[in-house]
Amino acid sequence: MDGKATAAAVRGEVAAEVARLVDAHGETARPGLAVVIVGERKDSQTYVRAKRRACEEVGISSFGFELPEETTQEALQDVVRELNARQDVHGILVQLPLPEHIDDEKVLDGIEIGKDVDGFHPLNIGRLCMSGRTPPLFVPCTPKGCVELMDRYGVDVEGKNVVVIGRSNIVGLPLAMLLLHRNATVTICHSRTRDTSAKVKEADIVVAACGIPKFVDKSWLKKDAVVVDVGINAVDDPSKKRGYRLVGDVDYEGAAEVASFITPVPGGVGPMTIAMLLTNTVEACKRHLPAK
Amino acid sequence: MDGKATAAAVRGEVAAEVARLVDAHGETARPGLAVVIVGERKDSQTYVRAKRRACEEVGISSFGFELPEETTQEALQDVVRELNARQDVHGILVQLPLPEHIDDEKVLDGIEIGKDVDGFHPLNIGRLCMSGRTPPLFVPCTPKGCVELMDRYGVDVEGKNVVVIGRSNIVGLPLAMLLLHRNATVTICHSRTRDTSAKVKEADIVVAACGIPKFVDKSWLKKDAVVVDVGINAVDDPSKKRGYRLVGDVDYEGAAEVASFITPVPGGVGPMTIAMLLTNTVEACKRHLPAK
Repeated sequence: MDGKATAAAVRGEVAAEVARLVDAHGETARPGLAVVIVGERKDSQTYVRAKRRACEEVGISSFGFELPEETTQEALQDVVRELNARQDVHGILVQLPLPEHIDDEKVLDGIEIGKDVDGFHPLNIGRLCMSGRTPPLFVPCTPKGCVELMDRYGVDVEGKNVVVIGRSNIVGLPLAMLLLHRNATVTICHSRTRDTSAKVKEADIVVAACGIPKFVDKSWLKKDAVVVDVGINAVDDPSKKRGYRLVGDVDYEGAAEVASFITPVPGGVGPMTIAMLLTNTVEACKRHLPAK
Repeated sequence: MDGKATAAAVRGEVAAEVARLVDAHGETARPGLAVVIVGERKDSQTYVRAKRRACEEVGISSFGFELPEETTQEALQDVVRELNARQDVHGILVQLPLPEHIDDEKVLDGIEIGKDVDGFHPLNIGRLCMSGRTPPLFVPCTPKGCVELMDRYGVDVEGKNVVVIGRSNIVGLPLAMLLLHRNATVTICHSRTRDTSAKVKEADIVVAACGIPKFVDKSWLKKDAVVVDVGINAVDDPSKKRGYRLVGDVDYEGAAEVASFITPVPGGVGPMTIAMLLTNTVEACKRHLPAK
């Protein structure tokens, strides 16, 4: 499954929608995303750059806030409070991880829930997990991107055996819930699971989100399984100019021989995550507009 | 696993704790539970009576509100608002199901989160589902009772294969999450699962919470599996004076031959649910007291 091409299609749709909004309601209807980064982690900077660039390409205003590593808890929360109040900011993204001395839960919980485009607020997660109730205001971007990618490739999850490897608050857990609500039979594996390979062998759909390079081996996969690889791991590679290359949580080359569909790394889930951030930001903005 | 005896032990501990609180802080520290019932469903009346009686036995004040079937949404929400404001009410329980014309989500979400002893508020569920964050103020009573019962019988869930049958907001889903956080490998089955028996055959621990009488058959169980039966189903039985008897979601007689531990119905999870309501009410009360 080509996440790069699919994300490009989504971005095209988002760009058209942004143009329509501005056309119908004027410049105040232009969606705006604030991206806050604390410190100088190279990977975080790369992600933030990619997110801001994606915004600009589709006509979403992007507001960057680069705070020094030594920013205090209070100062960071003040920034969030200011962004909560700004009318031109519809979504607020605080790039994780935050420095050790900062309580990230307090920061994230301080984001106005209507601007929580990452969908990490516990009230959003609660609504995501529950059935038959008010849906969450936002679905977290990576799980949403995985589902969108499968949808666009016609992968039906209803009644399927799905194994999700990883139980993080931002990927494994919410993705398991999304697939459960789509009537998959979901098994959640993690670092304490005794025999993950045995679980994977029964899976029609495998989602790897454990952060271990090439954890899932070809030999674990059922013929024609669908494989979604959420991992983005940097492994040393002296042949590369930057000294490393990115690999997923799945051994792509081997797995591709067995799987019916598989996402590459890079170019799979990553671009979809960013595309969903854009759709969430547009949704946030539209909630403030009269229907038109 | 004898839920009746275990619940009695819990109630004894709660009674001692209530006595200690009143002794240390005076009569204002006596925990109070408000139980609201709308309409005249026989089963709901039975549950409410049992809950109120359990309160009284341990020294928790119980306040009953029996509203007629035709109570309006607004009137019911007014009752909840009044109870939110009362200092002698530490927990509020609105018995489900509510009549068709009432939006139960609105009612439940109106309960002050610090008094939501059923733990059904989406913010509570969100906190329950997330890892490494602020824990929920209350864990829903039935899942909490299942875990407490297993704990007291020394059933270790770490690394075990657990199959939860049912994905309801009030039992299956939160129980799956509790067991996941205890490092079980959790599979959630439901009405759209293609082959529940195959999943159950691999399970070290099976939780049946699907509401189908005797759904789980002996032949599905691995030798020495642990079986927790959450079902309470009334089936016709002309030999009984009241015309029915209660059976679980598991065929108890058969399953008991294979399982290492199993909960009966009645006398298993049911009494534990009520016992956990008492512990949640005491917790709610204690949060208002200075440590002593």
